[in-house]
Amino acid sequence: MTPVQSSLDQRIGASLDGLLHALVLTPAGDDRFVAPAEPDRFTRVFGGQTVAQALFAAGRTVDGPTARRLAPHSLHAYFVQAGVADRAVEVAVERVRDGRTMATRRSTVSQGDRTLLVALASFHDNPDEPELVEAAPGAPEPHQLPLLQDWLDDLPPALEGHGRAWVDHPPPLDLRIGEAPTFLGGTPTEGARAHWMRLPRDVGDDALLHTVLLAYATDYLLLDMAFRSYPGEVPPGGFAAVSVDHALWFHRPVRFDRWHLHTQETVALSGHRGLVRGAVHDEEGRRVATVMQEVLVRPTVTAP
Amino acid sequence: MTPVQSSLDQRIGASLDGLLHALVLTPAGDDRFVAPAEPDRFTRVFGGQTVAQALFAAGRTVDGPTARRLAPHSLHAYFVQAGVADRAVEVAVERVRDGRTMATRRSTVSQGDRTLLVALASFHDNPDEPELVEAAPGAPEPHQLPLLQDWLDDLPPALEGHGRAWVDHPPPLDLRIGEAPTFLGGTPTEGARAHWMRLPRDVGDDALLHTVLLAYATDYLLLDMAFRSYPGEVPPGGFAAVSVDHALWFHRPVRFDRWHLHTQETVALSGHRGLVRGAVHDEEGRRVATVMQEVLVRPTVTAP
Repeated sequence: MTPVQSSLDQRIGASLDGLLHALVLTPAGDDRFVAPAEPDRFTRVFGGQTVAQALFAAGRTVDGPTARRLAPHSLHAYFVQAGVADRAVEVAVERVRDGRTMATRRSTVSQGDRTLLVALASFHDNPDEPELVEAAPGAPEPHQLPLLQDWLDDLPPALEGHGRAWVDHPPPLDLRIGEAPTFLGGTPTEGARAHWMRLPRDVGDDALLHTVLLAYATDYLLLDMAFRSYPGEVPPGGFAAVSVDHALWFHRPVRFDRWHLHTQETVALSGHRGLVRGAVHDEEGRRVATVMQEVLVRPTVTAP
Repeated sequence: MTPVQSSLDQRIGASLDGLLHALVLTPAGDDRFVAPAEPDRFTRVFGGQTVAQALFAAGRTVDGPTARRLAPHSLHAYFVQAGVADRAVEVAVERVRDGRTMATRRSTVSQGDRTLLVALASFHDNPDEPELVEAAPGAPEPHQLPLLQDWLDDLPPALEGHGRAWVDHPPPLDLRIGEAPTFLGGTPTEGARAHWMRLPRDVGDDALLHTVLLAYATDYLLLDMAFRSYPGEVPPGGFAAVSVDHALWFHRPVRFDRWHLHTQETVALSGHRGLVRGAVHDEEGRRVATVMQEVLVRPTVTAP
């Protein structure tokens, strides 16, 4: 391993440390929690972090009536306002319903009066059978593909600033992708794009934590898919882009320290909104999760 | 037109009258509304009705800061508990955020202490351009296909009871489908299934109402898709089935008195949960909406 790679590994590991730090939920009474800021992440709170916090807090209020704990099977969230990166967040959970085999929760992630995320989540006892088997998407092996950060070597100078943040504070994931993301200067192509992802190290056996970390990871590169699918010329001022919502369905338990393939494609793009669909498969080709995200891709108006 | 058809037309018209009646929202202060029951609909409140009420009430609290009204572009909801069909419902709306071009709302539909639906919805000023153009799905013309109710003629006796409700209180839609729904005795096949649907008559020009009525209509036959995709033998006791959530994205304004093609397919089925995806296209082949719904399909346990 070269010194540069070792350093990158350290930075990925530090990012994971930061994310796990932001998932330390301190109870503050009445199903409310306080979570510390994810250190040095970006200038704003990463949306996936608030999704993870909302789901983790909701899960902390769910205990099955039997010995078997209910597991999250779906989440629906809207990103409301940008969060300040260096400030703790509060997560308030409402117990909408506790059924025999299902539970419903409503979570709000906020910083003081500022609402960052509103979410709904559902939990199920998740029996094993039966299962519809589909053909797994074909993809090269993870180790045959470049790391996300490897694409930064060929960065156009204009993108240096944004790309630099990805070097200094990379996603807390081994993330391998065969095509440069559009925001890193990749040439837009049509159709689906896939990347492999997994946690860079062991995080123990807490099933809820594995699912929460996958939820976090599914927020990466969806927005970039909408850039990639943008019809017509890229406007001179570029885009202002933001994720609007995030929906997830978990079809089976997750071991996120193993490789997962996230296949993404754009469903529709109109009215400045792009709808992107994701499918997450494990190494055995079983569908683990389905993702939907709508993003706002608005050409930046430049002075004439 | 035969007398029997005329009578069916009348029943479809009466169903639409009933749905529009259930959408008469009486303000009850603080963004709360009361809506009357949909008369004679089913034994329980139809899930699509609560989705429509949640979205309509949310829309009633949204006015753009300019003359241009913000339009709904997405909704995420969970069905929580079954509603009593002959009782009024309350809809409470929370104004999560009012931005310059977007607004976010949280709606709760309830009957007293009983929560029927929790929903999140978003509104946007919905600029016209640009638009990603996709190939429209191929389908026969609506008038070449049987009405949903025509399939009832060949009902197996065992299904008579459930089918009877669809004769007496049909969906408030012209709904044309080339393959019998599974619950009406259709033979399960693989892949996508499509049906045409439109309002059976003019309902005026309120853009919000057209979108709300489409939202209502998208709740039909998704559950049946999960039956259709169920792997393995149908258990002797049949299924207990219920819709868990409902997500919608509206890509453009809707005129629902014109024909729309709803193409549906099963994405995944595991742990007794089926995830079904829908795409709604207009007569010109433009994608109008995208639908996701997870359903619980649990084999009914029969005494040994």
